[in-house]
Amino acid sequence: MTRKTASQHPSASARQAGGDGGFTWTRPHLLGLEDLSKEEILHIFRTAESFQEISTRSIKKVPALRGRVVVNLFFEDSTRTRTSFSLAAQRLSADVIDFAAARSSVTKGESLRDTVRNIEAMGVDVFVIRHPAGGAPHYITRCTNCHVINAGDGQHEHPTQGLIDIFTIRERKGRIEGLNVVIVGDISHSRVARSNLWGLNKLGANVTFVGPTTLVPRAFQEMGAKVTHDLDAALKDADVVNMLRIQRERMTSQVFPSTEEYVRLFGLTRERLKGTRPDLLILHPGPINRGVELASDVADGPNSSILRQVSNGLAIRMAVLYLVNQAGTAMPA
Amino acid sequence: MTRKTASQHPSASARQAGGDGGFTWTRPHLLGLEDLSKEEILHIFRTAESFQEISTRSIKKVPALRGRVVVNLFFEDSTRTRTSFSLAAQRLSADVIDFAAARSSVTKGESLRDTVRNIEAMGVDVFVIRHPAGGAPHYITRCTNCHVINAGDGQHEHPTQGLIDIFTIRERKGRIEGLNVVIVGDISHSRVARSNLWGLNKLGANVTFVGPTTLVPRAFQEMGAKVTHDLDAALKDADVVNMLRIQRERMTSQVFPSTEEYVRLFGLTRERLKGTRPDLLILHPGPINRGVELASDVADGPNSSILRQVSNGLAIRMAVLYLVNQAGTAMPA
Amino acid sequence: MTRKTASQHPSASARQAGGDGGFTWTRPHLLGLEDLSKEEILHIFRTAESFQEISTRSIKKVPALRGRVVVNLFFEDSTRTRTSFSLAAQRLSADVIDFAAARSSVTKGESLRDTVRNIEAMGVDVFVIRHPAGGAPHYITRCTNCHVINAGDGQHEHPTQGLIDIFTIRERKGRIEGLNVVIVGDISHSRVARSNLWGLNKLGANVTFVGPTTLVPRAFQEMGAKVTHDLDAALKDADVVNMLRIQRERMTSQVFPSTEEYVRLFGLTRERLKGTRPDLLILHPGPINRGVELASDVADGPNSSILRQVSNGLAIRMAVLYLVNQAGTAMPA
Repeated sequence: MTRKTASQHPSASARQAGGDGGFTWTRPHLLGLEDLSKEEILHIFRTAESFQEISTRSIKKVPALRGRVVVNLFFEDSTRTRTSFSLAAQRLSADVIDFAAARSSVTKGESLRDTVRNIEAMGVDVFVIRHPAGGAPHYITRCTNCHVINAGDGQHEHPTQGLIDIFTIRERKGRIEGLNVVIVGDISHSRVARSNLWGLNKLGANVTFVGPTTLVPRAFQEMGAKVTHDLDAALKDADVVNMLRIQRERMTSQVFPSTEEYVRLFGLTRERLKGTRPDLLILHPGPINRGVELASDVADGPNSSILRQVSNGLAIRMAVLYLVNQAGTAMPA
Repeated sequence: MTRKTASQHPSASARQAGGDGGFTWTRPHLLGLEDLSKEEILHIFRTAESFQEISTRSIKKVPALRGRVVVNLFFEDSTRTRTSFSLAAQRLSADVIDFAAARSSVTKGESLRDTVRNIEAMGVDVFVIRHPAGGAPHYITRCTNCHVINAGDGQHEHPTQGLIDIFTIRERKGRIEGLNVVIVGDISHSRVARSNLWGLNKLGANVTFVGPTTLVPRAFQEMGAKVTHDLDAALKDADVVNMLRIQRERMTSQVFPSTEEYVRLFGLTRERLKGTRPDLLILHPGPINRGVELASDVADGPNSSILRQVSNGLAIRMAVLYLVNQAGTAMPA
Repeated sequence: MTRKTASQHPSASARQAGGDGGFTWTRPHLLGLEDLSKEEILHIFRTAESFQEISTRSIKKVPALRGRVVVNLFFEDSTRTRTSFSLAAQRLSADVIDFAAARSSVTKGESLRDTVRNIEAMGVDVFVIRHPAGGAPHYITRCTNCHVINAGDGQHEHPTQGLIDIFTIRERKGRIEGLNVVIVGDISHSRVARSNLWGLNKLGANVTFVGPTTLVPRAFQEMGAKVTHDLDAALKDADVVNMLRIQRERMTSQVFPSTEEYVRLFGLTRERLKGTRPDLLILHPGPINRGVELASDVADGPNSSILRQVSNGLAIRMAVLYLVNQAGTAMPA
């Protein structure tokens, strides 16, 4: 895990063209966007841009992380996110191990610390961790010398999804500064909303959270977001709207009366788009509940960049995997 | 996914020795044997022959599909078929992702189209799909620019298994033209029987379907098969008998009275072999119910090529993976 | 699967420095330590030493088994052992297939022999098998020409774990000859205890088994171990203590009155360490029940080499995978 020289980067020339202003990445982990500086976020984006082209090649592979081992340590199931990280790691020539926590010694009562230290002792380099408890990835960094990437911790952060969303906005709009970004749904329980907010604020966007009062408490204003419960008003000046997935299990509870009511108040339909800017960019972190938070024709319409988010996910995750491996280890060995 | 030149084939010389008469493969997908021409089937066989030798090497790997990604998208569990495709892909140096549909966002209500388009957006090349609904692979070709290989769709087709069976017959008998091939079992529900029938008919064999009246309706005669319910009569002139697996769950229903009755009427035993040609070739697509459709000593006897089918499975699947990747994409990008 | 020459070893010079005295490995399988000679065990250790360094590299990969296929065939779940074998195989550049027996055609009633012969027919090289029945790996060697490595069979042997433990003792103590090794726990049901006993006896250590009378019958004396039920007495002259995991499900039965009682009589605590040698080496095959067989501060204390066992596990499994592949096939093809 020694520091590599810039010349080892698979497309050093592309990167210089992007111009990294001599920036040196030093973070061994990616835990959240709250911690990152604007410069660090932009450096991830430059690195992701240099990787985007690889996924369009017939031979989709560069040797950047050959002989490194990436461990997917998912305590919540997410085939899609896990697959995205696995493909990103393979594309950098790393080996990938899925450590299915649900069926492992974890179920025999082993502690998270013991699980992590045991896998580390087998000689691995990166943990990609998803965990129902906020802060679990931070705790793991104190147990191991390996790199740690947060793939979603409780209701806290999902930094790669936040980076994907912001990167896609920047790609489509050419900038982030000054944009009005509306995020709609169950903000209260959403790690995606939080990571978006931290990142967008740092890059100068204006973020508005929209949803039922039960799911968007006013307290979010202290984090730097505007809060409203009127979607049509919020969309009037919006440059971007990011529609969060509504968890069907919450729809049966008392947070809102019915699916029909939710669709009427907060669903994005073709009808509702009439009052918005023609170049409104529509995002969704997936998977979509078609007909609930997003009408099917809107999801597939010209303003939607939802599949582009998925493609950019590969480039962002390649960039993050590559950069943390450049940074050396977190603790003295 | 650009078209490769013939010189990239790992054993071009072997292939020229086989003589492909300048045939150019153009299909981006393999959906069924009903669609294929005789020439296409023979071209798959020539390609498979050129790959057979690789599996006997100590270094069982050629770089033909390096940097390509094959996704196993199995909506029905089949460890054996999935493993065969995975090994075939690895042997061509492709990366393989198992997208376990049962534990994925599919269970969160996502549509097949959304699942496929999301995985495609991650930058993959081939979907190997098994699905309980006949026609699902065809539907997928209309959702994606990736290559699609049908690994079994409902009661419709299982084209690689059909190719394996016919390839093994041709290897053992030296020809297909004019052979009498008897297929025994639950024809009514069997995609293997259908794929065999389409392929064998195109290559000039005479196919007879045998089984209980409840499982082999007369209507199959319109597809080009003889239909009978008398196994001994059918075996008299048979060159090949292909014994299908009887699903134990069907044996408890009213389609036939008992396992003993099925064995007596349609099981292949040493006793029953007495009335057959000494060089009768015995096939079974596996896994065998020993003592039900096939007696144990017959399965392991000199006329059986059952394990050879499994070995040929690798070569056939390597050939199909290789050829569809040669063909470019189905739709304009 | 032809025999390789010594020059193909990835660190031939390191090996000659170790001095293998011209020893030639001939075993195609690793079934248990009872069968091995002292010289064979020492040869595995020399090979493991030459592999240890690879896991500390940034590019943790040597091409020794490129193009070979290792199949994990686990009839009992063990994420940790399976992961260790998978990483070891990958580090030698082999391809790995997990054949999850629980979800395969095995559940459709297929015999172990048919399962193994079918996978073999796909062109694989090594079976790593875990099975609840003692002797299952030996049976498999009679069904296949592939190499077979026992990853735990019933209450019989777990040879790689035994090798890991003995290798770690030798690394820490510089020798095995004459050492007093105490193994504590449910000896009666432990394949780890048996493999340790066979190996340690061959290398000249004195082994003492300690545990409740219900879990350590006197009959083990005939296998070459001392048997006692007084842990403090056994620890007085011990150089090494190997604490076995207590299965929680056994704790509810009548073999001992309660967890508290077990901890009081057989748990290794800081208090109990006071009467022992200051350089007592503490081992545990993992995963640990902290606070049951081993107090948490003892597990993490200076005498513990528990994580070193995990690291050595990679080197031992790489050595075993490498050596059996050197040996050619078990039966004529």
